[in-house]
Amino acid sequence: MRPSGRSTDQLREITLETHVNKYAEGSCLARFGDTHVLCTASVDPGVPGWLRNSGRGWVTAEYGMLPRATDGRTDREAARGRQSGRTQEIQRLIGRSLRAVTDMSAFGERQIRLDCDVLQADGGTRTAAITGAYVALYIAFEHLRRLGVVEKVPLSEEVAAVSCGLFRGIPVLDLDYAEDSEAGADANFVMTASGGIVEIQGTAEDVPFTREAFDHLMELAESGIQRLTEVQRAALGELGGAA
Amino acid sequence: MRPSGRSTDQLREITLETHVNKYAEGSCLARFGDTHVLCTASVDPGVPGWLRNSGRGWVTAEYGMLPRATDGRTDREAARGRQSGRTQEIQRLIGRSLRAVTDMSAFGERQIRLDCDVLQADGGTRTAAITGAYVALYIAFEHLRRLGVVEKVPLSEEVAAVSCGLFRGIPVLDLDYAEDSEAGADANFVMTASGGIVEIQGTAEDVPFTREAFDHLMELAESGIQRLTEVQRAALGELGGAA
Amino acid sequence: MRPSGRSTDQLREITLETHVNKYAEGSCLARFGDTHVLCTASVDPGVPGWLRNSGRGWVTAEYGMLPRATDGRTDREAARGRQSGRTQEIQRLIGRSLRAVTDMSAFGERQIRLDCDVLQADGGTRTAAITGAYVALYIAFEHLRRLGVVEKVPLSEEVAAVSCGLFRGIPVLDLDYAEDSEAGADANFVMTASGGIVEIQGTAEDVPFTREAFDHLMELAESGIQRLTEVQRAALGELGGAA
Amino acid sequence: MRPSGRSTDQLREITLETHVNKYAEGSCLARFGDTHVLCTASVDPGVPGWLRNSGRGWVTAEYGMLPRATDGRTDREAARGRQSGRTQEIQRLIGRSLRAVTDMSAFGERQIRLDCDVLQADGGTRTAAITGAYVALYIAFEHLRRLGVVEKVPLSEEVAAVSCGLFRGIPVLDLDYAEDSEAGADANFVMTASGGIVEIQGTAEDVPFTREAFDHLMELAESGIQRLTEVQRAALGELGGAA
Amino acid sequence: MRPSGRSTDQLREITLETHVNKYAEGSCLARFGDTHVLCTASVDPGVPGWLRNSGRGWVTAEYGMLPRATDGRTDREAARGRQSGRTQEIQRLIGRSLRAVTDMSAFGERQIRLDCDVLQADGGTRTAAITGAYVALYIAFEHLRRLGVVEKVPLSEEVAAVSCGLFRGIPVLDLDYAEDSEAGADANFVMTASGGIVEIQGTAEDVPFTREAFDHLMELAESGIQRLTEVQRAALGELGGAA
Amino acid sequence: MRPSGRSTDQLREITLETHVNKYAEGSCLARFGDTHVLCTASVDPGVPGWLRNSGRGWVTAEYGMLPRATDGRTDREAARGRQSGRTQEIQRLIGRSLRAVTDMSAFGERQIRLDCDVLQADGGTRTAAITGAYVALYIAFEHLRRLGVVEKVPLSEEVAAVSCGLFRGIPVLDLDYAEDSEAGADANFVMTASGGIVEIQGTAEDVPFTREAFDHLMELAESGIQRLTEVQRAALGELGGAA
Repeated sequence: MRPSGRSTDQLREITLETHVNKYAEGSCLARFGDTHVLCTASVDPGVPGWLRNSGRGWVTAEYGMLPRATDGRTDREAARGRQSGRTQEIQRLIGRSLRAVTDMSAFGERQIRLDCDVLQADGGTRTAAITGAYVALYIAFEHLRRLGVVEKVPLSEEVAAVSCGLFRGIPVLDLDYAEDSEAGADANFVMTASGGIVEIQGTAEDVPFTREAFDHLMELAESGIQRLTEVQRAALGELGGAA
Repeated sequence: MRPSGRSTDQLREITLETHVNKYAEGSCLARFGDTHVLCTASVDPGVPGWLRNSGRGWVTAEYGMLPRATDGRTDREAARGRQSGRTQEIQRLIGRSLRAVTDMSAFGERQIRLDCDVLQADGGTRTAAITGAYVALYIAFEHLRRLGVVEKVPLSEEVAAVSCGLFRGIPVLDLDYAEDSEAGADANFVMTASGGIVEIQGTAEDVPFTREAFDHLMELAESGIQRLTEVQRAALGELGGAA
Repeated sequence: MRPSGRSTDQLREITLETHVNKYAEGSCLARFGDTHVLCTASVDPGVPGWLRNSGRGWVTAEYGMLPRATDGRTDREAARGRQSGRTQEIQRLIGRSLRAVTDMSAFGERQIRLDCDVLQADGGTRTAAITGAYVALYIAFEHLRRLGVVEKVPLSEEVAAVSCGLFRGIPVLDLDYAEDSEAGADANFVMTASGGIVEIQGTAEDVPFTREAFDHLMELAESGIQRLTEVQRAALGELGGAA
Repeated sequence: MRPSGRSTDQLREITLETHVNKYAEGSCLARFGDTHVLCTASVDPGVPGWLRNSGRGWVTAEYGMLPRATDGRTDREAARGRQSGRTQEIQRLIGRSLRAVTDMSAFGERQIRLDCDVLQADGGTRTAAITGAYVALYIAFEHLRRLGVVEKVPLSEEVAAVSCGLFRGIPVLDLDYAEDSEAGADANFVMTASGGIVEIQGTAEDVPFTREAFDHLMELAESGIQRLTEVQRAALGELGGAA
Repeated sequence: MRPSGRSTDQLREITLETHVNKYAEGSCLARFGDTHVLCTASVDPGVPGWLRNSGRGWVTAEYGMLPRATDGRTDREAARGRQSGRTQEIQRLIGRSLRAVTDMSAFGERQIRLDCDVLQADGGTRTAAITGAYVALYIAFEHLRRLGVVEKVPLSEEVAAVSCGLFRGIPVLDLDYAEDSEAGADANFVMTASGGIVEIQGTAEDVPFTREAFDHLMELAESGIQRLTEVQRAALGELGGAA
Repeated sequence: MRPSGRSTDQLREITLETHVNKYAEGSCLARFGDTHVLCTASVDPGVPGWLRNSGRGWVTAEYGMLPRATDGRTDREAARGRQSGRTQEIQRLIGRSLRAVTDMSAFGERQIRLDCDVLQADGGTRTAAITGAYVALYIAFEHLRRLGVVEKVPLSEEVAAVSCGLFRGIPVLDLDYAEDSEAGADANFVMTASGGIVEIQGTAEDVPFTREAFDHLMELAESGIQRLTEVQRAALGELGGAA
């Protein structure tokens, strides 16, 4: 029934390729099917002004999309001179999501900047970005651990994200663009490996949806997140360490 | 237990004062306790380019905050030359929420612009804005009805919004700023009078929260929305009409 | 003869409502008929860079207009990304006007920021803003006096503003929008209670006007300012103090 | 008594050099002593949107200052990415002043753009700009007359501008920078050859000034404008024509 | 002698991988050693305003760098709100270079937009961008040929680019970052397969260089371009076609 | 054959008028025929952040064009809110060119800002700007020498610039606008009095050009630069000093 032939609770093929950038302290190319997001984690020696002398660090994120990541070309935000509301909304979400599992008091007055750049978009770029950014962030902390800056990686557990939606009235997991563009409702879930909720964003596309439908979406999300955190663990496990 | 002395499922004092602007086709000053948002609905003869010759209309929203609406003064966005990510996120939410109950094919190629300006902020400005914008929008459509442009107000039912959160671990309804600033989780619910879900935005502030907690928040929201739509109906009923 | 039925030397109904904002150190809602301007005075601990270590304070102003303050909706300046020339001109005028009666050496290295936001515009927004900003500024200084920061309110005397113009060739006081839009000349006068001139801005709308006409406008202004400063005194007198 | 040794009612040396740009339809280098402003008038085939199909033309102005026109270098506005409030205020004033003597119905749907660029600033740049812009505008109209677009130059009479101020308490004409920077009051007068008032902008620098002082400033201005319009006439007379 | 161990006339390992983006009409990932530039060619139905109704097409380019493409993180241009002078200079160069080998009269009023985004930078990003953009452009034209829009690919011959410089006084080919950062002179050459010069940009880094040195750089460039065009031909040859 | 009647190796009439601004430490009005560029050198007490405590100075440049410097009026960059790519490219070139002959360790932590503003443009504005900026910079250093800040002018030798191009297939020196607009190739050369190359920028306008043609252009440039440095020397010689 789904355009891709997937079953309703089936994720796209997920790969999390690490060490894809020779400069970044942590990096990960997250692929959710044809959605490809390059995530880097950069350790910056200072913190924003309002944290100076607090002894605490910070994690922040920026999001971008290459102009031809999409089917029709999108204007380059740097050329237009401003980031769209959508971009700002997404990068704020990524930052909040990763901060929710990070111990800010454990790595000194440093800022870790996550850059999530979409090379190709086929739906779910923000969920791929969060899932990949966790891996990049982990590797950056692992780098700080090897340098002796932290004793252990200050991440409480894995965090990942997935979207669910009502496609022709049926709840389905991990929408691709073909589904997303005609979905009746679309919800993004950011959750931890142990099932903790970090962020929920659900939107009716055309008409309001019911609480029952929403509960179905959340169940699909819980199972999807479970599998995503396993993929994260596998990608990091090869490095000899996981949260 | 709540700083305001309210019970956990008690809204602040809500008033929706209509006809507060002599020029706007619809207007409403929404007060949720000390949060005061001035909402106007302006009927614009044209539609955005991508809707031209579609026969359909559009509803959009803008949000702003007076610099001293907040305890400490906030920089004026017009002076800084850009709207913050937060502002853009909120105005996109308001627009989506109102469009979910509006029949875009019923009022021709017109655009209704909702302006929600916060005169004083004490938490929950976006939920007050949505609740008040519905009233302003209704009055503007009522104005078009009297002009013979529409036969009846093209709104399927009332839409309103409220925030809930975990304050010292307890689910409470309609957070004020004192509560919001130390809440462990914060969720905004946009729902219709009949219980349909339009938008859910839930965020863990510090640590992830459980699905049980989230279900409690949603129940509080359902009862709060019920009462808010009654206040909307009363405010509009005096005008001799409700959706 | 005037559209409003006023006599040539009659002000609109003027009210100056104080303490309209729960956060600001000083606030005043100035109403000149249907022109409503919300003025707040915010005390900021620092001064601009060029005044640091001078021992002197500063008073500055910002001006804005809600999009539907006007008959037709005006674009939101924050959304356009720049303040118009008109806005900048007005806010510079407000700042200069208030500084002319303030003793900058009396309140330490503090900055008082006046925000004048037009909720509804029916002509004369800048004159209502100046008249209301004086009241807000006075209350903010009164607040500093109660805190022991200043011994007395460091304002030499009241300052107020009014517009005059040639309407169908006749000099009239306090133009409303219906008059302003067809006036042959328009002049704004900022003066003190004792008749001192702080600022005069006179503009021919269509054809140059004579010196005699200008002298009539100034006489009207002098009488109008006299009455405005009385209203200011009354509004502040209730607080138990006036300059 | 004046730093320059001038008498109180003495203008600086004024020269208005025409045809200083090989491309512009009209041009004039206005020198008020060491203040040098290059004025060009460019005829543009279209009008702003709100005048299309009105049969009327428009005159507008832009103002700029070379970075080292001033004693200390000023940041380049193009590099900062915005025009200052002062720049916008001045260019709006120049445009209004010239429009006040132009018959907009006489030259079709054309726009004349006046560019006033300060090469060197020693006080009074806006008054030199207006005085020079009149000459550039006249020459541009003369050019349109030779082309047969207009029958005669559609300018009702000369318009010129001068500043006056209170220097050490004494009213003086045509302030230079040394005077301006310590003047107690500063007023710019834009007037026509026949004494009509186009614009008055008077500002107290430190303390309010009296009506008597203001009347003295206006008398000085009237005599100064008289002489400036004679210089304009002489500059244009050589071209074989004056308004 | 070179940090990389290369001989003075040796290119880095060059690969041009085609079809790396599922949406773009043409795409190529150009790798010059550790410099990786993703190039896409997007066919846009319209042309810029000044070409409308000319019957001619246009080719233009934009350039960007991911924030962590560089050793230290670079600010995101979209977040800063403006493209740097360097970015604009490079994208103008790419556009001019490709237009020099394109027949603009052969493909109707279409615009081809080249996006060159640096994923990882190790010197020579602009030369990799030009070399890869040619391949992407060729594939896009090949796509238009298959659609019957053009009869043959309207490119006169291959164009490629390489940098040369004086490293410790010795002319070397294809500078990497380690060399570039201490080179005494740096020159970028854009040339065609037949040796035609499209663009030369030579810059002394510290002290002027001699004409003899410049002639050596040009000879190195000629041989490098020869080899680059062979790699381009091979990458496209696999597609069964070359210019 | 040339529109101006000049021989192929003939410069336009060149004048370098010094001391044209009463405030700037150094100034020069460079005229290359009808191209007039006003160059000022301003000594600024500080250096950019990345040079602080280095003991070294800096030389930088900005470039601008008055709106009616060109045949058709060009939009004012300050009004549009951004400098064009062309402007940024040119001002970066001017800065690099002057830095190539300046000893940055000789004048302390000072910055010299070169402002090159085009009053009238007839081709070759960047080459006139560089040639004039050298003179302005020399005079500013001479000023520092008289103040005892430097012992001698820290410029190694004269630097000047000229453009050459293929006009109707023939190499010609110092293109004016009539030639430039139809030239087949256009190259700018920045060189020193002793023949050292500082910068070469060669561009094919339509079709690639040959190496032989490029060598001819360079020979013309060498002779042109020779004569320009003589004019520089003469302009400065009158001041009783040359590098």
